[in-house]
Amino acid sequence: MNTQQFNQALQDIQQDRTQGASALARQCLGVLAASARDAVACDTQALLGLLDNRRQQLSASRPSMTPVQNLLDHWWHGVRSLADMSLSQCRLEAATEAERWIERSKSALSQAAEQAAVFIGGHKTLITHSLSGTVVELFQRLKGSHVQALVSESRPLNEGYSLARQLSEWQIPTRLLTDAQMGLFAPQADIALVGADSLLPDGSLVNKAGTLLLALAAREAAIPFCVCCESFKQRTPAMGPPLLETMPVDELGAPSLPGVQVNNTYFDITPARLIDYWIDENGVYSEPAPSSAPVKPDH
Amino acid sequence: MNTQQFNQALQDIQQDRTQGASALARQCLGVLAASARDAVACDTQALLGLLDNRRQQLSASRPSMTPVQNLLDHWWHGVRSLADMSLSQCRLEAATEAERWIERSKSALSQAAEQAAVFIGGHKTLITHSLSGTVVELFQRLKGSHVQALVSESRPLNEGYSLARQLSEWQIPTRLLTDAQMGLFAPQADIALVGADSLLPDGSLVNKAGTLLLALAAREAAIPFCVCCESFKQRTPAMGPPLLETMPVDELGAPSLPGVQVNNTYFDITPARLIDYWIDENGVYSEPAPSSAPVKPDH
Repeated sequence: MNTQQFNQALQDIQQDRTQGASALARQCLGVLAASARDAVACDTQALLGLLDNRRQQLSASRPSMTPVQNLLDHWWHGVRSLADMSLSQCRLEAATEAERWIERSKSALSQAAEQAAVFIGGHKTLITHSLSGTVVELFQRLKGSHVQALVSESRPLNEGYSLARQLSEWQIPTRLLTDAQMGLFAPQADIALVGADSLLPDGSLVNKAGTLLLALAAREAAIPFCVCCESFKQRTPAMGPPLLETMPVDELGAPSLPGVQVNNTYFDITPARLIDYWIDENGVYSEPAPSSAPVKPDH
Repeated sequence: MNTQQFNQALQDIQQDRTQGASALARQCLGVLAASARDAVACDTQALLGLLDNRRQQLSASRPSMTPVQNLLDHWWHGVRSLADMSLSQCRLEAATEAERWIERSKSALSQAAEQAAVFIGGHKTLITHSLSGTVVELFQRLKGSHVQALVSESRPLNEGYSLARQLSEWQIPTRLLTDAQMGLFAPQADIALVGADSLLPDGSLVNKAGTLLLALAAREAAIPFCVCCESFKQRTPAMGPPLLETMPVDELGAPSLPGVQVNNTYFDITPARLIDYWIDENGVYSEPAPSSAPVKPDH
């Protein structure tokens, strides 16, 4: 992957509005694997310098998406110590290490979905907001278990439509709502469940704007609000506060008017006190990680 | 107004998605005034029968919009006793009575907006949802008082854009949001204020879907949530529970998918316990009408 190809890949990742944080993190790891294999470098040290530079650019490209930073940090932790290898050995090992983290990410996501599926069981109506890889895998596991879905469109890009399309294929009965109708329909659900872009150190949730409203609607409707994601989405205190990314306002299709500022912030923060269960690849918790022990799925 | 013209007017009112409940109620009264003036009738009794029939059709056309029922009932109360008049006298009096109720409706709306303007004062940031005639009049009174507005687009028809356009003309600094961002931005407002389609006997609020989410967001942000409307929007226990109107789903632009039901319910109900102030033409109340006395606007 030469410089021009890398810059294009970086721009694609920066501008991506449809994939979740985990998928984008794996895309970054794929870019690093390709870079390790064939980016121009005269020796091992030059290759490692180039990989470190590309890692840092990728890591900074999506500041709201913690798994990008976490997975790239894990990868670099294994790669930076390869300075004693030959160039060809270093290329192979750095690429293989990226692919290992891609697999670990996928595996953690699947296991988190499995934990949620066991916890929720069948004969339930779930309400969700936005599109999450974990939530898609959860529904895949629950199809045939008499579950129903309430899905918000998730403005501005309506990725809820993609989820509805998948649920339709799996023959899971689904009702599609405007985001504004989440308060009206939450009482018809048994459980509210979303994925995450990041989890803050205190257990608060960074996710697509509107998630906070769903959490408030769930509390109002007295149904549990759950977040299901891999632990790679956990931010450490050292990472500092998350930046809530703002996207181009032309996505909204709003009129351009003097004195009217159109806002298109993609993420909001749901405080931990509005979250009833945190589900990751290791279990289901009624307190934020890492201090808590899993709860039994016997509710 | 002949039968064909009446049927067209009735259909226009049924299908109207942009005007608020008060404006539609006045439109109904205008239809009745025109009917009184020149609908075909051989005598007074025939005219009153025709007017009663048209009143009932209009009244049933927008079941979520209480002022339609209330104002038409008030009008009919004055008109049904005109049986002793000559036909021409009855025509004039029934039309004039409709115009009186149109003026009373406008006057009550203006006075409610004035009560809210005095209560809120200047140097405040208001967050609102949907488009309300009362809220427009309130902002008209507050322009030049250093107020700012946070306006949600209000899917599916985005009538928030119309409000933003009006605020832009009045040079009131405005930020326009997707409905999903209301939770994120409520903490930047001093007060949340909406109009109403109906007030239920216990003080609960029927208004555009998403209003409940704004009320929950306001409570979460610890800012007061206020409803401002004329008392013609008050439902009596005898009127029974409100029907929450559902509109054509093609308004949403959502994909048509097997097993996926698209929902387009226009209204939700905000329980009275989430409302801090009820404002009508008579005052500002911290308890639902009619038992409460106005609070002083000295907060």
